[in-house]
Amino acid sequence: MIQKDPYLLTPGPLTTSLSVKQAMLRDWGSWDGDFNGLTAEVCERLLEVAGGRNSHVCVPMQGSGTFAVEATLGTVIPPTSTTLVLMNGAYGQRIGKILDTLGRPYLAIDKGDYHPPRGDEVAVALQEHPEIEQVVVVHCETSSGILNPIEEIAEACRKARKRLIIDSMSAFGALPINVVELPCAALVSSANKCFEGVPGFGFAIVERELLSASAGQCHSLSLDLHDQWKYMEKTGQWRYTPPTHVVAAFLQAMREHEAEGGVDGRLARYSRNRDRLVAGLRDIGFRTLLADEWLSPIITTFLSPNSPAFEFRRFYDAIKARGFLIYPGKLTVADSFRVGCIGQLHDEQIDAVITAVAEACQELGLSIPVAVPALAPDNLETV
Amino acid sequence: MIQKDPYLLTPGPLTTSLSVKQAMLRDWGSWDGDFNGLTAEVCERLLEVAGGRNSHVCVPMQGSGTFAVEATLGTVIPPTSTTLVLMNGAYGQRIGKILDTLGRPYLAIDKGDYHPPRGDEVAVALQEHPEIEQVVVVHCETSSGILNPIEEIAEACRKARKRLIIDSMSAFGALPINVVELPCAALVSSANKCFEGVPGFGFAIVERELLSASAGQCHSLSLDLHDQWKYMEKTGQWRYTPPTHVVAAFLQAMREHEAEGGVDGRLARYSRNRDRLVAGLRDIGFRTLLADEWLSPIITTFLSPNSPAFEFRRFYDAIKARGFLIYPGKLTVADSFRVGCIGQLHDEQIDAVITAVAEACQELGLSIPVAVPALAPDNLETV
Ligand SMILES: Cc1ncc(COP(=O)(O)O)c(C=O)c1O
Ligand SMILES: Cc1ncc(COP(=O)(O)O)c(C=O)c1O
Repeated sequence: MIQKDPYLLTPGPLTTSLSVKQAMLRDWGSWDGDFNGLTAEVCERLLEVAGGRNSHVCVPMQGSGTFAVEATLGTVIPPTSTTLVLMNGAYGQRIGKILDTLGRPYLAIDKGDYHPPRGDEVAVALQEHPEIEQVVVVHCETSSGILNPIEEIAEACRKARKRLIIDSMSAFGALPINVVELPCAALVSSANKCFEGVPGFGFAIVERELLSASAGQCHSLSLDLHDQWKYMEKTGQWRYTPPTHVVAAFLQAMREHEAEGGVDGRLARYSRNRDRLVAGLRDIGFRTLLADEWLSPIITTFLSPNSPAFEFRRFYDAIKARGFLIYPGKLTVADSFRVGCIGQLHDEQIDAVITAVAEACQELGLSIPVAVPALAPDNLETV
Repeated sequence: MIQKDPYLLTPGPLTTSLSVKQAMLRDWGSWDGDFNGLTAEVCERLLEVAGGRNSHVCVPMQGSGTFAVEATLGTVIPPTSTTLVLMNGAYGQRIGKILDTLGRPYLAIDKGDYHPPRGDEVAVALQEHPEIEQVVVVHCETSSGILNPIEEIAEACRKARKRLIIDSMSAFGALPINVVELPCAALVSSANKCFEGVPGFGFAIVERELLSASAGQCHSLSLDLHDQWKYMEKTGQWRYTPPTHVVAAFLQAMREHEAEGGVDGRLARYSRNRDRLVAGLRDIGFRTLLADEWLSPIITTFLSPNSPAFEFRRFYDAIKARGFLIYPGKLTVADSFRVGCIGQLHDEQIDAVITAVAEACQELGLSIPVAVPALAPDNLETV
């Protein structure tokens, strides 16, 4: 039964280890010291991975990753302060939507579906708009799979003395990041991505000084990251009922992350997954949306075959019947689908996915190698 | 290992069945039809229990119960509309705090720690303040364990043609409620209370017409109940990543709820637990805060012994060492502790708790029967 479940080639929720799931076979009192110990260990470990032990604090937040992003933006950005949002996909756009809802002023650099925002563009914007006080960027923009160049963006922010906030939802845990060296004022991620936990909470790693200065700014009671932090500092408890089982699973996931060699170990496995997957699907005739330099080891977008016989729904079902769930595309410019590299996936699963894709193509009546359309040249110029 | 975990005599998180926890041993794709089927079944079952199949919709919300309360208030109450909040404990006060944070106008009837708000008081307030458009009340005010008289409050609302919103977090699933007969415009509850699921999401059962008219009102993107509903209607999916494992556990919990005889079956067991517990602790000399008529079958507040030898922390630890977690009191007027009756607790556990309490008293050096202080008479007059 358990073994027959499809593997999730999706960028979280993803396939977790059995031992992570088994950590949920206990009930925890959310007021009890034993559970508080789990929470404290999770936060300490996360701070350690981010390199922020002396400068930052880690605050978990109930809900999905978006809740943690909204909590962070709503708490640390003063209501009249101007933000620069870098967009190149759905998650950058969502950050804009959050600020719209909160009525907080912002400017955007929108690079469309999959062009990376570059450091020099950020530098120019910061020079032209001195009212900007913080920049928000998505680390791996999961909607295309692009790995944004956060180092050069951080460098532009550092030079202009602006705060950098990173949505590292789908990258933290597998891509090295050091919040002090970068530097990064706040980094947001969640339980069910590269640490391979199950979904139910997110967390923010925030400069202690910044969070200290953020009392009373949040638009929401539930999402008030400052209040959550203060309450946790005082009592060791979450302010409102935590997803106890999910937290217990996450601690187990973090131990397994460490045992695999931490960020380095995970990056190595995910990169290997991606390379094997991309090579295998290119052999079948597929093309990646992005040039190799921008491919993240998280998720890869493949352009859909240029044939009336290709129908995503049928393709999905044919692959599902072979034991794998893939992900639909999220582009506006081209038909595509996505395949994730994260979660409990190893060579064996990647090879089986490649076979499943090939068989699905045959089932749909596509001749192999499949023919894939070229993107218009202007779409590719900066890629 | 699993069997040795302490029983939780707390009002959620609570002790769940092993089969509920085992439902978390699978990973689900949040985009996949199989998982959408779980969500749909959960919502249908909840609507059925609430009696709102033809008039109401059920919308789940990621996060703890407070998130679902805030989502509901923020979404369905127009920004300038005045609300009457009935308070008699921490959860009624939290509703006021949410409206404060949102900047929405409200009036309060605050009955202090444990006096019930009555129908005639509500009627008078509604007459004196015609600007009030909705009334919010807590069903079982978990901070004292009082069961508020929602029928007479609903009757006052019905007569004055005002909407009633109920925080039935700790009551729904064990106390009968019919949102059409009452009537109730919106009822909020969560996964880890009387349905005996694990924590990670809440839900609101809202009049379809009211929710339809609520577009664009919410102060938050993540907590926008209208958007969550619309997205789910269109796609079958949650708007942002759902706590997949928690949802799977909840469906299993709902099946077990049904198998136990639904609300009636659960009410019978919880009432039996309460009666047995109260009788047993009264035998040891303890007194309940409330007169029998106001005791809920959810959680009971007991006054702390009137002795310098009684120290809650030591009492808690002594009971924990015997395999049970109890809950601290939440009263401002008197020292107290609370013992929950909900979760996988049966005669055997209740009897063992009574023994554990008696042994803990002896360990602390209290003579049995313990002496408990009387509350000042004015505290008791309406009780
Ligand atoms: C980069 C990024 N940001 C935000 C989110 C939103 O997270 P959630 O769906 O948990 O709300 C995701 C989800 O995949 C993501 O990849
Ligand atoms: C009546 C009531 N309302 C609200 C809440 C808050 O729920 P949560 O702690 O899940 O946010 C509770 C929790 O026990 C409750 O009993």
